[in-house]
Amino acid sequence: MGSYTASSQSSKLFFRQLFEKESSTYTYLLADVSHPDKPALLIDPVDKTVDRDLSLVKELGLKLIYALNTHVHADHITGTGLIKTKSPGVKSIISKASGSKADILVEPGDKVSFGDLFLEVRATPGHTSGCVTYVTGDGPDQPQPRMVFTGDALLIRGCGRTDFQGGSSLQLYKSVHSQIFTLPKDTLIYPAHDYKGFSVSTVEEEMLYNPRLTKNQETFKGIMENLNLAYPKMMGIAVPANMVCGLQDTTS
Amino acid sequence: MGSYTASSQSSKLFFRQLFEKESSTYTYLLADVSHPDKPALLIDPVDKTVDRDLSLVKELGLKLIYALNTHVHADHITGTGLIKTKSPGVKSIISKASGSKADILVEPGDKVSFGDLFLEVRATPGHTSGCVTYVTGDGPDQPQPRMVFTGDALLIRGCGRTDFQGGSSLQLYKSVHSQIFTLPKDTLIYPAHDYKGFSVSTVEEEMLYNPRLTKNQETFKGIMENLNLAYPKMMGIAVPANMVCGLQDTTS
Repeated sequence: MGSYTASSQSSKLFFRQLFEKESSTYTYLLADVSHPDKPALLIDPVDKTVDRDLSLVKELGLKLIYALNTHVHADHITGTGLIKTKSPGVKSIISKASGSKADILVEPGDKVSFGDLFLEVRATPGHTSGCVTYVTGDGPDQPQPRMVFTGDALLIRGCGRTDFQGGSSLQLYKSVHSQIFTLPKDTLIYPAHDYKGFSVSTVEEEMLYNPRLTKNQETFKGIMENLNLAYPKMMGIAVPANMVCGLQDTTS
Repeated sequence: MGSYTASSQSSKLFFRQLFEKESSTYTYLLADVSHPDKPALLIDPVDKTVDRDLSLVKELGLKLIYALNTHVHADHITGTGLIKTKSPGVKSIISKASGSKADILVEPGDKVSFGDLFLEVRATPGHTSGCVTYVTGDGPDQPQPRMVFTGDALLIRGCGRTDFQGGSSLQLYKSVHSQIFTLPKDTLIYPAHDYKGFSVSTVEEEMLYNPRLTKNQETFKGIMENLNLAYPKMMGIAVPANMVCGLQDTTS
């Protein structure tokens, strides 16, 4: 292992990792605290923890401007709709490729700016056909090392399943190798879920130790085809709700 | 809110936060990666996640030298004993005031060194009579902002109960106010547990928003006396085991 940094440094960035235990979902709060408004965004908020998240935003004196999803989740309902109801002015963001409704539909290469900081949108389909990964900017004022919010495309020592919602193991393999493993080795990986209690990894660690993505493409395909997973309990409720950014979404 | 840094920076420190879901326990892995041996320590390991922790230590090329407990836990069995069995050479550490067995019994003011980094031991009784808090060192090469591992003395927006194991609400109040709230405001607080999905806080945040510790001493005492909590399910098994640093401890 060459690179070891386990936290990103920036004079501007405020960062918090938050966890929803039932679905083992990570929500991420980022803000530019050097900006007078302290503009903030939430990545992958969960409906059940919206009050916790908004309370924290308020205590910290941040101004929430965006609520982003990495994809249409099948295991929990996004908090986006509830956030928009409780905090008018917040804009929901999801990929155009997801086919969902949201205030802003992003495409690969788009930037999501908050103050002087920004996230870059990368297409990482394979878990679902509309999955995107958000990467912190590359530049002198942006956080170093870079941080990548991979959704379910790449998990710590794992990856999202590929057997529904337009999933494709070959597409996922290509997405991770071309869009995530090409980032600097010390890039910090923050996934949408963890089931084993890991909080963060790095590109270098996953390139060395991910038990699935270190295999060749054919072996990976075989692994993914033989997971024999049950369908998520929440799927029938969560997917239709998340296609409109949460049941309580007010954009439609 | 004046200070916002949510991660600590050091050219030497490697840091990982790990979670055990059943008991909502955080385990912390710290190492000095600037030292040729990459000496590492684990704070509050859990028996059920020892294999995960040791596997990570191995993958990262670290040399685990210490397994520390902040106190005799009542809700889970420490991983210390198992770690010593699986990784001979690792020394267990707990406070002398805990009355427990371990390889090294620390007292307030002691330093636990790993490479060029160290933790300072502070007595923070109140949850149990032997609780200690570990604080990263104060100095030019030590992590900035400082990091404090508070065990159950101070939780994020909460604190440990004080109704058994020599607990005392007045003692806990004094411990937190004299030993933790006197640290720099941007000190990062890493507790032994979180039940709401928070991962980190700061001294400033808890001094402003902790719903218990921001009250005066008498009000705090009243709150703690009226929690009406059930005894931990694991208590009858965990406390005797943890008094010898885990059932499988080889020191006794």
